[in-house]
Amino acid sequence: MHRLELTKPDGRRLTLYSRQPIDPALAAPSPFAEPLNASAHLRWHPLRGEWVTYAAYRQGRTFLPPPEYNPLAPTVDAAHPTEVPSGAWDIAVFDNRFPSLAEPLAGSTPPPELIVPTAPAAGQCEVVVFTQDAKASLGALPLAQLELLLQVWGDRTARLGARPDIQYVLPFENRGVEVGVTLHHPHGQIYAYPVVPPVPARMQAVAAEHWRAHGRGVLAALIEGERQDGRRMLYEGPHAVAFVPVCARYPYEVWVAPIEPVEGFAQLGEAQRADLARALKTVLLKYDGLWQRPFPYLMAWYQAPTDGQPHPESHLHAQLYPPYRTRERLKYLAGTEIGAGFFAMDALPEDKALELRQVQVEIEVEVNPP
Amino acid sequence: MHRLELTKPDGRRLTLYSRQPIDPALAAPSPFAEPLNASAHLRWHPLRGEWVTYAAYRQGRTFLPPPEYNPLAPTVDAAHPTEVPSGAWDIAVFDNRFPSLAEPLAGSTPPPELIVPTAPAAGQCEVVVFTQDAKASLGALPLAQLELLLQVWGDRTARLGARPDIQYVLPFENRGVEVGVTLHHPHGQIYAYPVVPPVPARMQAVAAEHWRAHGRGVLAALIEGERQDGRRMLYEGPHAVAFVPVCARYPYEVWVAPIEPVEGFAQLGEAQRADLARALKTVLLKYDGLWQRPFPYLMAWYQAPTDGQPHPESHLHAQLYPPYRTRERLKYLAGTEIGAGFFAMDALPEDKALELRQVQVEIEVEVNPP
Repeated sequence: MHRLELTKPDGRRLTLYSRQPIDPALAAPSPFAEPLNASAHLRWHPLRGEWVTYAAYRQGRTFLPPPEYNPLAPTVDAAHPTEVPSGAWDIAVFDNRFPSLAEPLAGSTPPPELIVPTAPAAGQCEVVVFTQDAKASLGALPLAQLELLLQVWGDRTARLGARPDIQYVLPFENRGVEVGVTLHHPHGQIYAYPVVPPVPARMQAVAAEHWRAHGRGVLAALIEGERQDGRRMLYEGPHAVAFVPVCARYPYEVWVAPIEPVEGFAQLGEAQRADLARALKTVLLKYDGLWQRPFPYLMAWYQAPTDGQPHPESHLHAQLYPPYRTRERLKYLAGTEIGAGFFAMDALPEDKALELRQVQVEIEVEVNPP
Repeated sequence: MHRLELTKPDGRRLTLYSRQPIDPALAAPSPFAEPLNASAHLRWHPLRGEWVTYAAYRQGRTFLPPPEYNPLAPTVDAAHPTEVPSGAWDIAVFDNRFPSLAEPLAGSTPPPELIVPTAPAAGQCEVVVFTQDAKASLGALPLAQLELLLQVWGDRTARLGARPDIQYVLPFENRGVEVGVTLHHPHGQIYAYPVVPPVPARMQAVAAEHWRAHGRGVLAALIEGERQDGRRMLYEGPHAVAFVPVCARYPYEVWVAPIEPVEGFAQLGEAQRADLARALKTVLLKYDGLWQRPFPYLMAWYQAPTDGQPHPESHLHAQLYPPYRTRERLKYLAGTEIGAGFFAMDALPEDKALELRQVQVEIEVEVNPP
């Protein structure tokens, strides 16, 4: 993997990644000339015991621009710069211009004094451009590109996680207008948090307790059970699996994971990474094949916290939450889900898994592993 | 408050409530003749450490019927029974025909044996019809009707909470197609859970810790702060308040609460209840007045668990989450909110509160308290 680090005219960072060497003469464009002045702040939610971040300037963010103004496509006209340059690169990562979390700059507005504790919204929000091709989708990319993406996520996690103000790194993708996507060019995001956020914190605590009680990881135990049961498996390779979990909270929920626990992307071996890419691609192609149309989803990748502690209880994996419950109907999160955190499903995971198992997908045999 | 308990032809319960005596000759109709055979089950989610409920028969539930098939309107033609009878009653409560949680019946299907623990989905799901008028809305109802509703919620909580299989009672309303509403007749729901669900469990734990450390409730302390600050207050009466909380996670989030902590609806005094109804009505009218159109929201009312323990840390209150962030745009819950549980706001609560403060509402002076 090759990497080129650049700085945009407005001070934001851009990193280009490629399987080939990258021309060091490439320059980082930006649609914005004035320096970024992010001054988000955190407020403490005393009833839930968690932080909420406030970034009022985000209201001006880009919203479903026409294709000719796609900020994630390579710049072709220097008079109309986008976020990424033309040239030979495979994946680009840059600082979000509208971050909910950002490294506090010297001289930036201090957080307001309020009736609850406040703090600067430290951390980082990055945009990950999956490909130069605006019309592609993550699942349609070559396996080698997906493997590179897993490497990129590992590189970002290692770099962001090394910062003392960052405790947790979450790569995710929102796909489809149904989940609020504002740009259609294939891309994801990385949020690097100043604390371990509530959902990973809860999962870490549960996993740590399981580890203490059983001497093994809770996800490793579940994967063993899913493989033995078999009914909900969508992919089973030498190093990675994908399945509708027995405890799915969304009708078409799928988890993707290496079989052997690793703490994060950076700890994946080459063979594991290749098989994990194949597992992911299988799921995404099944999704799009199910109704022969692009299938929206939210995909979050969970890793160990970057708090400098060992986390043998952690097990890298993705959880994918599609918003549809049938071809025509969305699953709304309402009273019981949002108000109580208690999920109610009107579909059985076994039935939804069967639908996805029946979707045939073709994946290339890899001839040139990276 | 008067009450009449009835049984529907399919075995479900119907309770009618009124400020006036109710004709005991009223009979309970049902659109369904065959007995309810609810056999939902719970599955343990080992990574999150919580239960999920599965009720596959819910896929057949009523979805946005035309007005002439409104199941929540009084029955006018015995050949086409609805869920409620014609006659003089103010509020009706009946067992949901498509429950996610239900009292396990003798002889019902046992939960399946799976690779995670399972259990019968004990509990209860009730529908609360707020009025006989299909075209009304909760905020447009007379104050006396809202006061009666608070009494009804108290009565339901006391009755459901007394059951040994029920640990938590959550009254809520989903309003608007934006939050997945499938029937427009003004109504809410009550979920009675066999466990304290994750969100209330977290809030109880945080509140109990605050209580031990400070000898007072965390919400009572916050209300004192909000009243002193004043900028986010929407209603301040002798016994109740409504405000955009300083830590709002949704742009137009509002909380409604009695000023003095009470554990639940059943513990409200008459004057508290009257003022709480006025606070709630004020908020709902401001919502509808803001853009001069019906304003969707999710409203959840939090009370103490019904586990038989004293809960001095509990403080009855409502949290209202509207899905809009501006007149035209929805706030989607995506990567950081759903994946991490870390909420990112692009609006300041002070600004949203100002918008709502500027909406003038007129509420009747109550001449005939119930």
